[in-house]
Formats: sequence, C-alpha cells, structure tokens
Amino acid sequence: MAIRHIALFRWNGEATPEKVDRIRDALARLPGRIPELRAYTFGPDLGISEGTYDFGVAADVDDEAGLEAYRDHPDHQAALALIRPLLADRASVQIAVPDRG
Amino acid sequence: MAIRHIALFRWNGEATPEKVDRIRDALARLPGRIPELRAYTFGPDLGISEGTYDFGVAADVDDEAGLEAYRDHPDHQAALALIRPLLADRASVQIAVPDRG
Repeated sequence: MAIRHIALFRWNGEATPEKVDRIRDALARLPGRIPELRAYTFGPDLGISEGTYDFGVAADVDDEAGLEAYRDHPDHQAALALIRPLLADRASVQIAVPDRG
Repeated sequence: MAIRHIALFRWNGEATPEKVDRIRDALARLPGRIPELRAYTFGPDLGISEGTYDFGVAADVDDEAGLEAYRDHPDHQAALALIRPLLADRASVQIAVPDRG
C-alpha cells in the first residue's frame, strides 16, 4: 500500500509571484533527488473554484520509510524554508493509494 | 493538461466510524459511475503525522468539463450530502497534473 502525502498552502501577504516561482523551481528538483518519490505533483491552484487554497503538493511514496526520506531530505527542507515564511495556512493529510499495477 | 481536485475534511463530533464507512462506500462507487474520473484516491488519514486532516480525496479529470461532470453528478452530490453534516473544516485545491503518457 503506497502513501499519498498531500499538503495545501494558503499564502500570506509576503507571497509574490517571484517567490512562488522559486518554490516551484525548488520543488521541481525534488523528484530527481529523492528516489523515494514515486510521483510528485504540485502547483498553484487553477482558479476554477471559490475558496480553494493557493498551492497544492501531492507526493506518492511506497511506505512510511519513503515518507520519512522525503520529509527529512535536505532539498525538501530547503524548499520548506522558502515556503514557511509565506504561509497563512496549511492543510495536510496522508492517505493510502492502491499500488500501481 | 489534466486537473487534480483535492479535498481534505476534518470531522466534527457527529462523525462515527459507521458514518465514515458509509461515506467511503459512497465514494467507492463513483469511479464506476462517473466516466470523467481518470483516477480517484480517497480515504482516512493514516495517522502518521500530527495535525493532519481526517480524510482526503484526490480526483483526477481531463479538464474543466470533467471537473464539472464530477462535481454535479448526482452520486457525487449524494456522497456530499453524507459528508457535509460531519464537517468541522474543509480545505481544497485544484492543480494541474502532467498528462499520463
């Protein structure tokens, strides 16, 4: 049973398009550096619906060890250091994903 | 460019394991009934991390029309009717997903 870690961010007044671009660049590097990431999808909210958060990340890993490897990886920590100062709110969940056949 | 709709729920005091099971059963029927759903992953939080929401849903569709078909489908509306009375909090986002090759 694989695990999908999902994190949603709502930006505060400090967030600028340039800062969010730097976050996207930092996240885009992670799949190449963290082999435990089986799938990695992230990006800004598409602006289709009202009341949504501003940014979402979905990280699929094989198991809890993979989740830990992702969480603690220095490149992920570096991305979090860019994200944290811009956070007004954060929501997260970890759910089971059927294994890919 | 496909779309991933993500919704996180935090339950209120009305939620019981039986009610949440009914919600899981209702959601489990949706992929068979809503052809626009390309992938559908949902379930309770796995209890690995602190501060997470209680339940997550990730719905992948091809485009905005697919998202609308999912949102408005009577079987999805019926599931929402089970979910809404149990909600203490809800967080959602819609992000772009690279098309499956």
